Amino acid sequence: MSLLTVGSVAFDKLETPFGKTDKIVGGAATYITLSASYFTNKNNLVAVVGGDFPEEMIKIMQDKGINTDGLEVIKDGKTFFWSGRYHNDMNTRDTLDTQLNVFENFNPQIPTNYQDCTYLMLGNMVPALQHTVLKKLNNRPKFVMLDTMNLWINIANEDLKAVIAEVDCLTINDEEARQLSGEYSLRKAAKTIMEMGPKTLIIKKGEHGALLFQGEDIFFCPALPLEEVFDPTGAGDTFAGGFIGYLAKTDDISFENMKRAIVHGSAMASYCVEKFGTERILSLKQEDIDARVAQFKNLAFFDL
Amino acid sequence: MSLLTVGSVAFDKLETPFGKTDKIVGGAATYITLSASYFTNKNNLVAVVGGDFPEEMIKIMQDKGINTDGLEVIKDGKTFFWSGRYHNDMNTRDTLDTQLNVFENFNPQIPTNYQDCTYLMLGNMVPALQHTVLKKLNNRPKFVMLDTMNLWINIANEDLKAVIAEVDCLTINDEEARQLSGEYSLRKAAKTIMEMGPKTLIIKKGEHGALLFQGEDIFFCPALPLEEVFDPTGAGDTFAGGFIGYLAKTDDISFENMKRAIVHGSAMASYCVEKFGTERILSLKQEDIDARVAQFKNLAFFDL
Repeated sequence: MSLLTVGSVAFDKLETPFGKTDKIVGGAATYITLSASYFTNKNNLVAVVGGDFPEEMIKIMQDKGINTDGLEVIKDGKTFFWSGRYHNDMNTRDTLDTQLNVFENFNPQIPTNYQDCTYLMLGNMVPALQHTVLKKLNNRPKFVMLDTMNLWINIANEDLKAVIAEVDCLTINDEEARQLSGEYSLRKAAKTIMEMGPKTLIIKKGEHGALLFQGEDIFFCPALPLEEVFDPTGAGDTFAGGFIGYLAKTDDISFENMKRAIVHGSAMASYCVEKFGTERILSLKQEDIDARVAQFKNLAFFDL
Repeated sequence: MSLLTVGSVAFDKLETPFGKTDKIVGGAATYITLSASYFTNKNNLVAVVGGDFPEEMIKIMQDKGINTDGLEVIKDGKTFFWSGRYHNDMNTRDTLDTQLNVFENFNPQIPTNYQDCTYLMLGNMVPALQHTVLKKLNNRPKFVMLDTMNLWINIANEDLKAVIAEVDCLTINDEEARQLSGEYSLRKAAKTIMEMGPKTLIIKKGEHGALLFQGEDIFFCPALPLEEVFDPTGAGDTFAGGFIGYLAKTDDISFENMKRAIVHGSAMASYCVEKFGTERILSLKQEDIDARVAQFKNLAFFDL
């Protein structure tokens, strides 16, 4: 089934305890679509970049089966730029610089050939813009997933709640779940958030794994304990892309299949952090993904 | 098979966001033996208390099948007392008061009828004392497990490493694993710590679950997402008691069986935190434990 992803395509400049990068390609929609490309070839992107964005990267995305008809290039504009420095624990980071550039006036246009999408991923951006995308679709997709961040909980709370009310699945991290719900217990937080609208909630806990909630059902997928986390940038988006890509591939939104989707998303994220930026997830083979999914099974299964 | 536990039996005075207690019975060895009592009735305790310790509690322990021949009562002494206040996140706490009392000069005596123990649990205390216990046993037990804390890593590092070198399994939390190994990555930390001696390592991550390491094998057991964590005191010891109690019951120290033991320990710990002190783990039935173990399976299993 077809997947539509709307979100940022950007340049990142990163510092981690392992090194620094110059400007490299990043952005939520980049990670989401690249990750999803291992699961579906009906992989449609809506985003905006400036004339400074490398055509080579667009070519790479197309080679991965990503449809870039909806990638608007504003020739005389500059691409969204973010710069950050990770602390030693790799879980916290400081933003050094943010230049929204062409992303500031992003007005997502949905190409006609995208209108029939079955799965929709609203990457992290201004909630009102996420809402606009939903309204611009002639038919509501079968499954709509939304990612957001603490910034929007703080400065666009009402807009965020308005769009959250209309999606099927929300994905946020544990601190954001606490912030959004006002509950410390993640179980209570999940209940409160699901009452806001989404039937399904994914709480990402970084190195501590991810929780999937739906009604009274809970599934927990650990993160793979890695020798080294090289660069966590994009891990959450890669996870989301693997998750929704797997759902789009299998076209099965049962809770049981969502468990498999979470594991595939986690496997993708575990690769993402092994190198800077998109490097590692650009070079995966199907057998790499299968091998890692098997590792998750080994990690979590026991025989009673 | 028989289990011997050496450690503190104490009074705790607790404050959590949910309320306060007066002096209630606590201590590492209390939680360990009570938890293990659900798995083995060859459950031997070596500890020391003062004349102020309630005989009623000793009777309760005996009714749970705990052999208290090794519980020394110093009539004119006072029982070890600890007082603490948990922060809102329930993961951090301040110590308000520590009075070692009779525990300060604790000189563990091993009753003759304890000498044949197959499983030994060295609860958290001065590392030199843990070492003394090992030396006082005529035969080395089949399986020796040790718990410790950040304090001993700081002030008794050499003594700690000397005793760690002689045990089969070490159980510590994630921050302590990082402190002891000097490695941030838990996978690297585990490797470094296992090179110090223990063939098996358990890293406890509180609400984020527990990791079991042995050679290249890793198993992860999540913590059950609870609506409310009422009082985390004793959760780690209850976990350890369930783990080693299960091993003693089954007398199988294979990695596969240790997985089952970790799940049983986690189930016990998930009950422990539901009420203040030992209240909840005193009132469990076998079917409660079985039901919770089944919940862990539901939480972690997926069908590929």
